Amino acid sequence: MSIITLTTDFGQADGYVGIIKGVILSIAPDARLVDLSHEVGAQDVSQAAYILARAVPYFPAGTVHLVVVDPGVGSERRPMLVETPGAFFVGPDNGVLTPALDDPAAQAWELNRPETWLPAVSATFHGRDIFAPTAARLARGANPAELARRISDPVRLVMPAPRRDAYGEIAGAVISVDHFGNLITNIPAEWLSGRIWRCQIAGHELIGPRLSYSDAAEGELVVLIGSDGTLEIAARNGSAARLLAAASGAAVILQPA
Amino acid sequence: MSIITLTTDFGQADGYVGIIKGVILSIAPDARLVDLSHEVGAQDVSQAAYILARAVPYFPAGTVHLVVVDPGVGSERRPMLVETPGAFFVGPDNGVLTPALDDPAAQAWELNRPETWLPAVSATFHGRDIFAPTAARLARGANPAELARRISDPVRLVMPAPRRDAYGEIAGAVISVDHFGNLITNIPAEWLSGRIWRCQIAGHELIGPRLSYSDAAEGELVVLIGSDGTLEIAARNGSAARLLAAASGAAVILQPA
Amino acid sequence: MSIITLTTDFGQADGYVGIIKGVILSIAPDARLVDLSHEVGAQDVSQAAYILARAVPYFPAGTVHLVVVDPGVGSERRPMLVETPGAFFVGPDNGVLTPALDDPAAQAWELNRPETWLPAVSATFHGRDIFAPTAARLARGANPAELARRISDPVRLVMPAPRRDAYGEIAGAVISVDHFGNLITNIPAEWLSGRIWRCQIAGHELIGPRLSYSDAAEGELVVLIGSDGTLEIAARNGSAARLLAAASGAAVILQPA
Repeated sequence: MSIITLTTDFGQADGYVGIIKGVILSIAPDARLVDLSHEVGAQDVSQAAYILARAVPYFPAGTVHLVVVDPGVGSERRPMLVETPGAFFVGPDNGVLTPALDDPAAQAWELNRPETWLPAVSATFHGRDIFAPTAARLARGANPAELARRISDPVRLVMPAPRRDAYGEIAGAVISVDHFGNLITNIPAEWLSGRIWRCQIAGHELIGPRLSYSDAAEGELVVLIGSDGTLEIAARNGSAARLLAAASGAAVILQPA
Repeated sequence: MSIITLTTDFGQADGYVGIIKGVILSIAPDARLVDLSHEVGAQDVSQAAYILARAVPYFPAGTVHLVVVDPGVGSERRPMLVETPGAFFVGPDNGVLTPALDDPAAQAWELNRPETWLPAVSATFHGRDIFAPTAARLARGANPAELARRISDPVRLVMPAPRRDAYGEIAGAVISVDHFGNLITNIPAEWLSGRIWRCQIAGHELIGPRLSYSDAAEGELVVLIGSDGTLEIAARNGSAARLLAAASGAAVILQPA
Repeated sequence: MSIITLTTDFGQADGYVGIIKGVILSIAPDARLVDLSHEVGAQDVSQAAYILARAVPYFPAGTVHLVVVDPGVGSERRPMLVETPGAFFVGPDNGVLTPALDDPAAQAWELNRPETWLPAVSATFHGRDIFAPTAARLARGANPAELARRISDPVRLVMPAPRRDAYGEIAGAVISVDHFGNLITNIPAEWLSGRIWRCQIAGHELIGPRLSYSDAAEGELVVLIGSDGTLEIAARNGSAARLLAAASGAAVILQPA
């Protein structure tokens, strides 16, 4: 009995996600369904890829990750599946599955067996018509070769990478802002080498990292290591995003303190 | 092990939906629960009926659809179940189950066995006290006759119907606006006869249908056949509802181009 | 196969809740997961406690309630579990589990076995690293003594209590405002003794209780007994919170009419 996770930009008001689940359960009645997010920004492929990358390590082997953020639905963009040693991924070939493709053992496949999809395929809802049946068949144990053909040129997102210079300065960026207004950066904790740094962001300078939110006063900004193992700027019981008027993409500069 | 879908106007903040699920699982521990929507507009019976109608065909036979949009809770309005050849429906007799009643083989029943409900029935939360236990019993295999008595006069919504005149003009309406701002109409694709049409909506004229969103330029309005098999007005990677300042009920006129 | 309910202030956009579910299902693959709310106000421990208290009676014996509203994460606040005759509760020792502690038979335990947690524990996401594995182990049948040590001094919230004076006047407060704008008070229905009362709230005086929402005219304010068995002020098919500009904490005074 496999788990299928769902990540979409559909929202939860219209019933579209429920329809996808109905299709899945019609084919794989015992699949376990776990919502990752249905509040990805409309057509925000990068945000979906980030949410997926963060969650995948916490699911058991054999999990099927279904991702439907699909601005090119109905066009020539290919429907795809990616197989890694630990999981399957199903979604459009538009970069959203980059976290899976980053696995050195990943194999990419183009879905090319319409007989494994719903009988009628719309031009606007491949999540229902193509991706849901494919995820359900994988959850039931289908082999990728029964659903798809190997491809060697899947689309990949270029994720912004942090840099270090010869003087020890680190330049990174905010890559996600969460529900609490925490600013999550792409600067790995290992780069901080256990030292104290001056952290510049949005015209402010902070000293850190500190150990936890509670090392700051109420509402105060705090630099710490977030739960993904990267540098995070937060405000204790407040929103760093609001206090700093900062969003995804904001530059973050670290210098040894 | 039956599926129970849930459609309410409860939102997801207060725990009311979780309470309904607790009641269901107390009676039918193996039921599969699928949320359709909990963001139906408060007391918007028509919207709930529409979401239900769109989703039902994608669920397997035997699914129980629980709908709690119930402005008359605590009044004389009857609690109801509807049986169709493929599914059960449970909810108030206020029109919200019209999509089920539209099945020519539908049978309507009034719930009249308080011993099958929760022991105490509140005046304000029949979703918890009456409808959840009923849905759970149906999922466990109860027969409608064990829960209810046949009725012949259930309340039906009158849904706006599209019209065609002798000159080939089609007059329909927007019946739903989704999360993306797509305007979904009640004009069936078959009526378009594979021809090209001039589509008037909210003071704009568009030519279509085109095949997919990607046949429009970024942000451009596009007329196409939506995933329900009806005419849809969308904006590529944008919101047609915002661009046109149009909402449910907006008139849509088609003339042969 | 136990049920695990989830109550957090994480929202549903970021995938954090999905990550918690992945951790749970990795340890307890057969657990049934039910969301109570992920829209608790950020760090609003009282609101989470209230949602929990209202829902617990409707879940079957043996349910595990996981609550992650945790402003002190990473500090010295203890990770906790509470065992009652009917359920387990897992969360931070910050008062959020007060509804469980109110059970006279409740036993409180401090989680103190890191070998039962995820191998690496972050400073910011104990929901994932400590509480989810603990809930999963309880759902699989673990004994509290395998996970924790007894404590006698758990943190409790002081909930506002209603009062009655010698002249029959009752003074209570709004303790929750739901999605519909209904104002739910802490005044128990039993105190009303089946009589009619004058109800003062936010500068208005209403007469009640009436039997149901439908005893009021469209949009009119109505006092009734809510589904929790306490006095509620509502507006028929409208929002009492908006009409009265009232929120949690608002005083409610009742005098015999």
